[in-house]
Amino acid sequence: MTPGEIVTALVTACERRDLDAVCALVTDDIEYDNVPIGKVFGPDGVRKVLSSGVMAEAAEIEWRVLAQTADADTVMNERVDRFLVGDRWIEIPIAAVFRVRDGRICLWRDYFDLDTYRKQR
Amino acid sequence: MTPGEIVTALVTACERRDLDAVCALVTDDIEYDNVPIGKVFGPDGVRKVLSSGVMAEAAEIEWRVLAQTADADTVMNERVDRFLVGDRWIEIPIAAVFRVRDGRICLWRDYFDLDTYRKQR
Repeated sequence: MTPGEIVTALVTACERRDLDAVCALVTDDIEYDNVPIGKVFGPDGVRKVLSSGVMAEAAEIEWRVLAQTADADTVMNERVDRFLVGDRWIEIPIAAVFRVRDGRICLWRDYFDLDTYRKQR
Repeated sequence: MTPGEIVTALVTACERRDLDAVCALVTDDIEYDNVPIGKVFGPDGVRKVLSSGVMAEAAEIEWRVLAQTADADTVMNERVDRFLVGDRWIEIPIAAVFRVRDGRICLWRDYFDLDTYRKQR
């Protein structure tokens, strides 16, 4: 898989909340940074974040990729991460940076406005 | 110039506050979206945003590009936009999307956390 395909696989694994598939796509020392919130490290850190909060609450999850670009091992994407909670969709506009090493993601950094999310809760 | 080189020229023109150079790099219908704040359109809109607020106040401006990726006419970059105001540097972590048409930028979308900026004012 190309770095771009690896990132696409990560996004689709997140949408179906397949955390084993997510963890198989990241390095042991991955840095996962939700920029306005903070960083976690390693597959356990990723698993904890992706199994809590709105990821746990949502009845459905859809991460729409609006754009994706790459340069060697660096991949970026622009997304709208959507979460169906109760009867409405929470939408978070995001731009992200990923770095791939030996076929796995070692950096995942999501840039977004925290208040835009909070105001929808 | 490649789309990536056009974006680099935009960044360096912003750093030296050369708004004529900035406006020469964008289309007449550019959409410039500071995602948590809102959009402006056209060179006049871009000029207005880039000549106000922290852009006007700062004694020095440095936009550090941490990563840049491209796919055809779409360019993305990860930056730390730095502004020297008084005796301290205000720093805004940003990920951005650009689209280039006929050698000019027709879309510029900056993703960042507005509170991260406000707390430094």
